[in-house]
Amino acid sequence: MARAHWGCCPWLVLLCACAWGHTKPVDLGGQDVRNCSTNPPYLPVTVVNTTMSLTALRQQMQTQNLSAYIIPGTDAHMNEYIGQHDERRAWITGFTGSAVVTMKKAAVWTDSRYWTQAERQMDCNWELHKEVGTTPIVTWLLTEIPAGGRVGFDPFLLSIDTWESYDLALQGSNRQLVSITTNLVDLVWGSERPPVPNQPIYALQEAFTGSTWQEKVSGVRSQMQKHQKVPTAVLLSALEETAWLFNLRASDIPYNPFFYSYTLLTDSSIRLFANKSRFSSETLSYLNSSCTGPMCVQIEDYSQVRDSIQAYSLGDVRIWIGTSYTMYGIYEMIPKEKLVTDTYSPVMMTKAVKNSKEQALLKASHVRDAVAVIRYLVWLEKNVPKGTVDEFSGAEIVDKFRGEEQFSSGPSFETISASGLNAALAHYSPTKELNRKLSSDEMYLLDSGGQYWDGTTDITRTVHWGTPSAFQKEAYTRVLIGNIDLSRLIFPAATSGRMVEAFARRALWDAGLNYGHGTGHGIGNFLCVHEWPVGFQSNNIAMAKGMFTSIEPGYYKDGEFGIRLEDVALVVEAKTKYPGSYLTFEVVSFVPYDRNLIDVSLLSPEHLQYLNRYYQTIREKVGPELQRRQLLEEFEWLQQHTEPLAARAPDTASWASVLVVSTLAILGWSV
Amino acid sequence: MARAHWGCCPWLVLLCACAWGHTKPVDLGGQDVRNCSTNPPYLPVTVVNTTMSLTALRQQMQTQNLSAYIIPGTDAHMNEYIGQHDERRAWITGFTGSAVVTMKKAAVWTDSRYWTQAERQMDCNWELHKEVGTTPIVTWLLTEIPAGGRVGFDPFLLSIDTWESYDLALQGSNRQLVSITTNLVDLVWGSERPPVPNQPIYALQEAFTGSTWQEKVSGVRSQMQKHQKVPTAVLLSALEETAWLFNLRASDIPYNPFFYSYTLLTDSSIRLFANKSRFSSETLSYLNSSCTGPMCVQIEDYSQVRDSIQAYSLGDVRIWIGTSYTMYGIYEMIPKEKLVTDTYSPVMMTKAVKNSKEQALLKASHVRDAVAVIRYLVWLEKNVPKGTVDEFSGAEIVDKFRGEEQFSSGPSFETISASGLNAALAHYSPTKELNRKLSSDEMYLLDSGGQYWDGTTDITRTVHWGTPSAFQKEAYTRVLIGNIDLSRLIFPAATSGRMVEAFARRALWDAGLNYGHGTGHGIGNFLCVHEWPVGFQSNNIAMAKGMFTSIEPGYYKDGEFGIRLEDVALVVEAKTKYPGSYLTFEVVSFVPYDRNLIDVSLLSPEHLQYLNRYYQTIREKVGPELQRRQLLEEFEWLQQHTEPLAARAPDTASWASVLVVSTLAILGWSV
Repeated sequence: MARAHWGCCPWLVLLCACAWGHTKPVDLGGQDVRNCSTNPPYLPVTVVNTTMSLTALRQQMQTQNLSAYIIPGTDAHMNEYIGQHDERRAWITGFTGSAVVTMKKAAVWTDSRYWTQAERQMDCNWELHKEVGTTPIVTWLLTEIPAGGRVGFDPFLLSIDTWESYDLALQGSNRQLVSITTNLVDLVWGSERPPVPNQPIYALQEAFTGSTWQEKVSGVRSQMQKHQKVPTAVLLSALEETAWLFNLRASDIPYNPFFYSYTLLTDSSIRLFANKSRFSSETLSYLNSSCTGPMCVQIEDYSQVRDSIQAYSLGDVRIWIGTSYTMYGIYEMIPKEKLVTDTYSPVMMTKAVKNSKEQALLKASHVRDAVAVIRYLVWLEKNVPKGTVDEFSGAEIVDKFRGEEQFSSGPSFETISASGLNAALAHYSPTKELNRKLSSDEMYLLDSGGQYWDGTTDITRTVHWGTPSAFQKEAYTRVLIGNIDLSRLIFPAATSGRMVEAFARRALWDAGLNYGHGTGHGIGNFLCVHEWPVGFQSNNIAMAKGMFTSIEPGYYKDGEFGIRLEDVALVVEAKTKYPGSYLTFEVVSFVPYDRNLIDVSLLSPEHLQYLNRYYQTIREKVGPELQRRQLLEEFEWLQQHTEPLAARAPDTASWASVLVVSTLAILGWSV
Repeated sequence: MARAHWGCCPWLVLLCACAWGHTKPVDLGGQDVRNCSTNPPYLPVTVVNTTMSLTALRQQMQTQNLSAYIIPGTDAHMNEYIGQHDERRAWITGFTGSAVVTMKKAAVWTDSRYWTQAERQMDCNWELHKEVGTTPIVTWLLTEIPAGGRVGFDPFLLSIDTWESYDLALQGSNRQLVSITTNLVDLVWGSERPPVPNQPIYALQEAFTGSTWQEKVSGVRSQMQKHQKVPTAVLLSALEETAWLFNLRASDIPYNPFFYSYTLLTDSSIRLFANKSRFSSETLSYLNSSCTGPMCVQIEDYSQVRDSIQAYSLGDVRIWIGTSYTMYGIYEMIPKEKLVTDTYSPVMMTKAVKNSKEQALLKASHVRDAVAVIRYLVWLEKNVPKGTVDEFSGAEIVDKFRGEEQFSSGPSFETISASGLNAALAHYSPTKELNRKLSSDEMYLLDSGGQYWDGTTDITRTVHWGTPSAFQKEAYTRVLIGNIDLSRLIFPAATSGRMVEAFARRALWDAGLNYGHGTGHGIGNFLCVHEWPVGFQSNNIAMAKGMFTSIEPGYYKDGEFGIRLEDVALVVEAKTKYPGSYLTFEVVSFVPYDRNLIDVSLLSPEHLQYLNRYYQTIREKVGPELQRRQLLEEFEWLQQHTEPLAARAPDTASWASVLVVSTLAILGWSV
């Protein structure tokens, strides 16, 4: 998991099936800390004054004859993390959330993770709505704007799929959805808007790529040729698509090594839309040295994409797009009969399955990542009892340890370092100003990951250094059982994750417990930490050999503690008693769970067998690496924490008594 | 299950998620028995000559300037079973399946269940395609008809959802989907076409209804008022919707007590479109006695529906429809801004949850149904060894026993009575001419159900009267474990069936086994045996207290045997250790499983506990009924077959040895 994963929900609702959508978000916050009914209103000092920017925005809306204006929290590429100069929503609201402004009101929709933050940052111009998705926004719009009203939006901030969900929801309501090419917030933002990033775009070394870009381009072209509708071009809108296709990286987006770009790959040309000045002569020659016509990369300016696609669309062409990542602004320019649509582009689909080199690279990055996490856990064991560690300083330490690993390129998301009740917020990240001290009396949840040139990692462990309560142990063990039950599941090839994710929940459900987020997501090779469309959400594609996904059940007790156990796993072939095409998972995260929190009596013999085999694997993979690096204290810790767990059997009491009684009976004892 | 359930797939693919779609259908048939390359071709005697009707159809197509014409296997109401006069596809192809005719070719798409039948019945005019769904049909169309070609269809035979799937698949292909109001097959069919049914339409006695029709009408109107878009009318296209709303029944459709109808329920009127001459004065007064304006039912002619809706649409109205059951022919007549669309109409959604009276009625029908099935199983035990029973005569007996039960109104679908390898066909039904003798050397599968005034039933049991093989026992027990694991699952309220249906498969998957159909479907009160949208398919709605669904895992070994264990279960609240809103299932089918086929060593203590509790419930529910009816032999049989099963524990060998060893150790024995 990572924080922004869930943040994607409101606008990527079809894509990530809004992790919090399974269960209604719980109202954690009670009363709004703001009091807008007094004069002047009572507001926290952290609040941002938005009166002037809202007034200016409404003037722009009036010019366009709009009753309402939608301000999504995404950018033109459906990035999960977005660059500062795309943070329109945060700028206009003072806060992160989906926003809509009418002539009279302004409102933000967000789930429980952001309620507290919203109240701290938003002034009284803004209503806070504690729901997510298109439906509640449209419901509100219908009461706020009159029949005949026009609802404006920036066509480069709504994907085709999102636009369709608005269009459907507004159907028959006599309110019109209006595409406004100029972003009205940007007009108001003016010179305050941060500039577009401009760092160099560089090519990955061959050692860190699964195939050359030429091989990838040929692969996509071959898919175009085999396609029933024979598209003449593929348009790539997601930044990770272009980064993957050309094995290029940069740092435009926090935590994601991408750069602003589009690619129009046609049957006879390769057109990369980006800022040409950012390519070194070395990179330019990497893209163009000794190439012949259809294999040369033409670099065109990023801002030309709309015009270029429009011009290309005039010919006898068919453009293949994925509707999840392509914006309505592109879609509305291409005549419908010239579109070949799928939910995901062929690049998204190909990237989802790692070849053997990519698998080896990702696995290697996870071994080193385990070293960093183990170093941190050992460090915590020594330092937490001293009372000198807080959530923020802890996060800095684990980031530092990761940074010391070979091929490190920073964290893959903002580290979630949460102690005690903060972990129940599930997506909490501490700040230098606002954090909690770690203590042996509380549980501590660490959800973190690294970007390495060979792979992206993401792991969550929850620990307790003192005496956990019986309920904490029970909840932890049920989460662990969920992780094991899903990890060891054998299922037919091409099963969708959604069909099997409940195995991670059953042990919790059985006791009336659950978690309100998704169970896992794909992950990339030095790409996204949440690499869709792999995962367990409803809109994810079927599981196939060679995919990587996280498996991450949890449990959160409001105001008390939070548990999550997250591993990354490779989808592999399973051997079954009767022959067939079956899959299972091979876990590639190599950090032991907390023995202090496991109630062995809840585990079946099969769970114990699985766990002890996994611990043996951790020893084999990470042990030698720790020894090689002379991390002997960490090696000792690892040996201790991967000792085989012994069975205790109160849960099989029925069997125990049957067997003891029968043994005694055999022996001639009366009972 | 029931045969036609799976038959719905090709055209209802979104609705029932094509039960066979999980896994690729297996090619059972090998070579086509027809040989169309000889002159004259070799054809089975059962083949129907379609040359003349195809020629006539192509003349009609030429008149309309069509390159292709789609012939769906449904009627204007998306009925699963259809009346004889709607059997256009069967008439033109000589067979059941989705059909498309071009000027040169004619083709049928169907899954493995119908391959043998197709070869027996179709002449050489027809190609057989062994796939289902819109995609393979469109793929074929794109190669068969030229660019610019027009693909015709009857707008009253494609639902909005199906039309959209064609429209999407043809997008960008330069082939046009053309709505042709006159059905071209009907023109060719001419006077041979069977007449529309004309039996009386009657009202159910109050004892058999959950609410009066006036209460139901008020309930729907109240939903209209509460709806955000305040629809002014609800249009009901599915026959079961009108039957349910008015508590009216007839016998237009085989196995389903429906009559051809539409309902337009507005805020101020109730317009029932049906053949008025079919209502007795008693029924007319039931609908109109002492009513005032908005609560009086106006009966208009069935054929008027299109014109009436068009006229109504001229006003300031908003018509609420369900896109799964409303035909494109209705949709294309209503201006889009006057439509309020959901996947299912409010009547479909309301009907899905049974009130307490409806629950009691459905349960009562299942007790009597169990009596009929138990009588048949006892009868089989005596008669199969004599060698006098075949699949067809057996089916007649169980239908007869059901017919003798109180409130019986015939079978709820064509009885699947399948011995040995025929059961591997999964949806096989015997005929008087083609059937197999039942034997103590083979497994026998019976999937059958009844229509009773109080409820509709559906149950499958698989039995073996001799010595089953170890593999047969293993497969049967794994199917049973699947049934139990899903039946006893505790899950959060509002979980969708799709998310939990894999619990019915896990025990099979574990060994590399699976089944290629869905896991269950809703069921009605003297309505459909497959009452959607309740069930475990991808497009089914979330589970809620008061729904009924079948739970029916299976296993099929081609050419050898087939196993299915199907029960109907009520969704009830679950009590959990920690409080929360959780659900589970209460099984209401009351026939024991076959002890001869259960390998107890595969069952966990929890499985045995569940099974023995279920058997106790069967004794309590059905025992007194058998005694009351003096069915003493059957009572004796029931007692025997519900004896508690005792544990055997080879599967827990690890525990056994641990415990025995430790017991011996305690006793001071050395081992």
